[in-house]
Amino acid sequence: MSLRAKITLPADRYLGPDPAQKEIAQTLYNQVANLPLICPHGHVDPRLLSDPDYQFGSPADLLFIPDHYVFRMLYSQGIPMEKLGIPGADGLTVEQDHRKIWQLFAENFYLFRGTPTGLWITQELVQVFGVDEKLTADSAQDIFDHISACLDRPEFRPRRLFEQFNIEVLATTDSATDSLAHHRAIRESGWPGRVIPTFRPDDLINLNTPGWLANIACLSQASSIDITNYAGFIQALENRRAFFKEMGATAGDHSAETAYTIELSAREAETIFRRALKGQHTAADAVQFTGHMFMEMARMSVEDGLVMQLHTGIVRNHNDYIFERFGRDAGGDIPLRNNFTQNLRPLLNKYGNHPGFRLIVFSLDEGTLARELAPLAGHYPALRLGPPWWYYDSLTGIRRYLDYVAETAGLQNLAGFNEDTRAFPSIPIRHDVWRRVTCNWVAGLVLRGVVDMEDAREMAHDLAYRLAKRAYKLD
Amino acid sequence: MSLRAKITLPADRYLGPDPAQKEIAQTLYNQVANLPLICPHGHVDPRLLSDPDYQFGSPADLLFIPDHYVFRMLYSQGIPMEKLGIPGADGLTVEQDHRKIWQLFAENFYLFRGTPTGLWITQELVQVFGVDEKLTADSAQDIFDHISACLDRPEFRPRRLFEQFNIEVLATTDSATDSLAHHRAIRESGWPGRVIPTFRPDDLINLNTPGWLANIACLSQASSIDITNYAGFIQALENRRAFFKEMGATAGDHSAETAYTIELSAREAETIFRRALKGQHTAADAVQFTGHMFMEMARMSVEDGLVMQLHTGIVRNHNDYIFERFGRDAGGDIPLRNNFTQNLRPLLNKYGNHPGFRLIVFSLDEGTLARELAPLAGHYPALRLGPPWWYYDSLTGIRRYLDYVAETAGLQNLAGFNEDTRAFPSIPIRHDVWRRVTCNWVAGLVLRGVVDMEDAREMAHDLAYRLAKRAYKLD
Amino acid sequence: MSLRAKITLPADRYLGPDPAQKEIAQTLYNQVANLPLICPHGHVDPRLLSDPDYQFGSPADLLFIPDHYVFRMLYSQGIPMEKLGIPGADGLTVEQDHRKIWQLFAENFYLFRGTPTGLWITQELVQVFGVDEKLTADSAQDIFDHISACLDRPEFRPRRLFEQFNIEVLATTDSATDSLAHHRAIRESGWPGRVIPTFRPDDLINLNTPGWLANIACLSQASSIDITNYAGFIQALENRRAFFKEMGATAGDHSAETAYTIELSAREAETIFRRALKGQHTAADAVQFTGHMFMEMARMSVEDGLVMQLHTGIVRNHNDYIFERFGRDAGGDIPLRNNFTQNLRPLLNKYGNHPGFRLIVFSLDEGTLARELAPLAGHYPALRLGPPWWYYDSLTGIRRYLDYVAETAGLQNLAGFNEDTRAFPSIPIRHDVWRRVTCNWVAGLVLRGVVDMEDAREMAHDLAYRLAKRAYKLD
Repeated sequence: MSLRAKITLPADRYLGPDPAQKEIAQTLYNQVANLPLICPHGHVDPRLLSDPDYQFGSPADLLFIPDHYVFRMLYSQGIPMEKLGIPGADGLTVEQDHRKIWQLFAENFYLFRGTPTGLWITQELVQVFGVDEKLTADSAQDIFDHISACLDRPEFRPRRLFEQFNIEVLATTDSATDSLAHHRAIRESGWPGRVIPTFRPDDLINLNTPGWLANIACLSQASSIDITNYAGFIQALENRRAFFKEMGATAGDHSAETAYTIELSAREAETIFRRALKGQHTAADAVQFTGHMFMEMARMSVEDGLVMQLHTGIVRNHNDYIFERFGRDAGGDIPLRNNFTQNLRPLLNKYGNHPGFRLIVFSLDEGTLARELAPLAGHYPALRLGPPWWYYDSLTGIRRYLDYVAETAGLQNLAGFNEDTRAFPSIPIRHDVWRRVTCNWVAGLVLRGVVDMEDAREMAHDLAYRLAKRAYKLD
Repeated sequence: MSLRAKITLPADRYLGPDPAQKEIAQTLYNQVANLPLICPHGHVDPRLLSDPDYQFGSPADLLFIPDHYVFRMLYSQGIPMEKLGIPGADGLTVEQDHRKIWQLFAENFYLFRGTPTGLWITQELVQVFGVDEKLTADSAQDIFDHISACLDRPEFRPRRLFEQFNIEVLATTDSATDSLAHHRAIRESGWPGRVIPTFRPDDLINLNTPGWLANIACLSQASSIDITNYAGFIQALENRRAFFKEMGATAGDHSAETAYTIELSAREAETIFRRALKGQHTAADAVQFTGHMFMEMARMSVEDGLVMQLHTGIVRNHNDYIFERFGRDAGGDIPLRNNFTQNLRPLLNKYGNHPGFRLIVFSLDEGTLARELAPLAGHYPALRLGPPWWYYDSLTGIRRYLDYVAETAGLQNLAGFNEDTRAFPSIPIRHDVWRRVTCNWVAGLVLRGVVDMEDAREMAHDLAYRLAKRAYKLD
Repeated sequence: MSLRAKITLPADRYLGPDPAQKEIAQTLYNQVANLPLICPHGHVDPRLLSDPDYQFGSPADLLFIPDHYVFRMLYSQGIPMEKLGIPGADGLTVEQDHRKIWQLFAENFYLFRGTPTGLWITQELVQVFGVDEKLTADSAQDIFDHISACLDRPEFRPRRLFEQFNIEVLATTDSATDSLAHHRAIRESGWPGRVIPTFRPDDLINLNTPGWLANIACLSQASSIDITNYAGFIQALENRRAFFKEMGATAGDHSAETAYTIELSAREAETIFRRALKGQHTAADAVQFTGHMFMEMARMSVEDGLVMQLHTGIVRNHNDYIFERFGRDAGGDIPLRNNFTQNLRPLLNKYGNHPGFRLIVFSLDEGTLARELAPLAGHYPALRLGPPWWYYDSLTGIRRYLDYVAETAGLQNLAGFNEDTRAFPSIPIRHDVWRRVTCNWVAGLVLRGVVDMEDAREMAHDLAYRLAKRAYKLD
């Protein structure tokens, strides 16, 4: 094995490149590197943590099969998703041999050069599993063996990793109709890890969701409220929010193609809702109804104190062929131009000045950051800006984000960091990247005489830890 | 006082961070640092300069009460504007104790870390008032005393500061119906400071302005022209432009939600105008009429030589609650996506090739800079690009602006710098920031072998002084 | 001449500025500096290379008269295009004295400080013609003499320059109805230079093209197919594609105001086409028809393997006055906001997963790069991203492009570089700029610990040479 290329993972990575900046950045980073991780938004399966003996599957299961952000890159170069073992629709035959899948992945790992996914995976290999070789066609099987052996060991059980990663709190994202049985099991197990749910009602407030009527039936059952009209629907949602809050939730989350908000009259909402119950609503109805429900969710947030999150501006399942074969979350979600200034105006006008309301907005349209979101967050007391989301959770994405928002919004109007991932072992890596890049950015301000070291230390600490904790009411 | 934190204001601030770049930048900066200030666009109250004994109020009056760009940040963190002494609508009780207000400001001054407002205020404290401590809860009252003592002294009268700041010319922004009495007083006082008005007819050409009919009555009175139809309206505007020009104006200025331009027929314009006189115009009428009036203003500019400025792309008074309590200019103006390529086409097609016409366009939508405005300015002889406006008049805003526009538009199609502020003592600070950042940017070109030092010196001088002077016909 | 300013052209230009980054960049650059040039898209006139004795005209003919990207800058400062010798409409008198024109150009060459055009021209003067003085009013006539003398010499014939530039392949852009006589002459001449055509049917698929009916007549003649209906039109286009392919083409190219695509039924397409044949189509017809023809071109690409290129998002001939006097390509083409996510969806849905299809998309709207095009290219197997186009083929344009796309799309989904120029002698300069800037960017990744030198060498090589060759199927 000695002739194969070693992985280089410099201690000062992502800092600099100016040597003076690097030195200051290192000082700031040393101060925050070991702070506990605040993980207020993500998609880790709570099952991992409810079962104390949960064991990850193969290295392929762990690193890319469930992660469309990774396998999309191989698909983009013409590698069929079937060959990567991505599970598909009934009747679709996909490769089952994980050694073969892993080999194919390793042979094409060069596709990830310079990408955040490449960088995360490399660091996971090194820092979580102690791999010391580059992942290539040659080294693939040895590394497969090595990781497999790790995964067999008790210290690689998710709960042990949770502790080793120094996670202070981890929020999952859960359907509004979920029983939260895994969360209950975690709480009742006596294990002290803080794992909390997040209330996500997308599939109920978007009338176009496939199976919407069945979802309403679930909601009815979960809330024990008979939903035959709009008032019942609202009551059931309020019921579920109360339950989530009881189970530790501090936030809800919403996704939609746009951030359009509008307040309908009770009669309009009722009319649309009844049409939907009969399967007779129009496309326009669905847009209006979601826009109205965002207003309702804000109202409920004012009342119950749950933080409201908005993840909008994305065309889901852009690729019909892939959607039909592999379902959703298969790599074909593509961002779209956004307009927050006008879309959020009704919601911010009604609730944005309310001391009890907290709204965190995420954007995949960088053009909106400096132009719209930073000025909005620098004015409305309720608004905080979420960190770079998805494709932007990268070295240059984070740097640009800070350049676009910090001067206008000020740091205290940011919601810190969250890694928004379903890849559990990547969590500490992503926080580490964020901490390095933000410390380096603050160091740049020191070096240019914008802030002094006293302020810089506070800013680095805020970005690494305190802003997220405060924004999500996790104190 | 010795244990409290001192302010650090490095002589080489905002230069670098690369040491070689910093050295070249310093050479360029030394050459332009003391050039007189050209201030062709801003919102200083001419009253300050018409009364030789004008005295600023308290430190709070001076630094943030009239400056929504500053107090919005405190409001965004939930500090009520009433507690900051921001004057509101009739019947609204606001804090009157300026020591208390100042204390609250100082306690929250950390919110401005890394922001341009924080940086300007800090430099004003140091450079204009000789403060040597950081503004904190501890130092607040001492600094209040210190500034108050300064303001009592004759050298802090606005005219003395104007001279000390080395202002060559200062343009104010004045309603088209203004008597320009303060400007007249300045001219007749024998004081040699050059202070000139700018013709701003927004409240006349936007039919939706609250009180539009009263504004038309003012215009009628100011111009001694009876305005009963569109032709009278046009004649009255021409009359006022002539008056402004007589009083030293070299430019007019216009703001609107979009840069939409359209040429209506005389009959269409007449029809809309008459509907407006009866209070019967529609929302569409207002849009068309403003678009048409931009064309008319361009025509008048061709004829009278006044430079035409456009500040568009902003939703004014986004927050109804704040607007109702505190009126306009209260922090709730939010930028909007823009489209200059199509919106300005009618105007540029009709007047953009005319040698006598000069149009200066500002944008709050950075996406339009490289994509639309730089190519337009690099083609149409009439067009110059205004400097970064509002939220973008910052260290990274200026740097991005230069990167976005300079390669395509060329430096000679830029309008140099203007600080667009109502905060008089911040003027030299803002020019200094611009000069430092632009010199640093030019130094980057030298260091990368793009231009030689001979060209660099010309570029630095152009950016600091000559471009603004030429663009606004101030020679 | 000794007192006049010399040109400085540092060997390490565009690298750095950080010294450590510069050193790594230089290592990477040394490895790629002399690789052959792949030129898969451009506008060089094949006539230059079909006639072995072709001689360029005057220095003005060579450097700016045919290049609207250059002369627009002088026009933007009020220099009439007539005085620059730009040929115009019948009856327009333009300056014919090329020494006078050249003098005017030289006097105003300072306008190009810091611009890519300035930098290209300077490097052409130095590297292609051995000029050692800056171009100024003083040096203008001597440099004119010097270049004229060069152009008289046999080594400045285009074929000799082609060899000296080390061009491996050069694609021209040719009307779909072109006889390709010059390409045939090159092939039959025995000269080994590889010059290939590109199929460009814009003037046939855009129903609003002036003279569209005459173009259809040309197509009919060129294909020997009688075009009386839509089916004949399609057949004729397929016929011409086959001919272009026979003549060496590996790609087609398309330009339009937007990237809108839509699949019409055969009957709808037929109906619109027949209306157009009678000159009775509407504006909406033209939009639908172009959108449909993009789909058809994709279908043909799947079948014949020609790579499909899309250059969209531009308002052509924005300035009526200039268009009427100087026709198209006269400096008035202005970019426009784009939306690829929704516009390309029909086309990518139908063909984007097809292994035989290759689509290369270019954008002048930088906002679409990170937001839309990188995610699309990082998912659809058919899609590659074209390099920075037009105004963005610059030092900062290239750097921003890489920052916007590389992390999300990955390098292998990029189409490398092409210089898209009609200025033949600028070709090696533009490739050199690209190679320097990309090596410097990769060096930045090495320095920050993102990739190691082994990966960096591969990335630099890919960007300089291999990606373009692969994307355009030039292997």
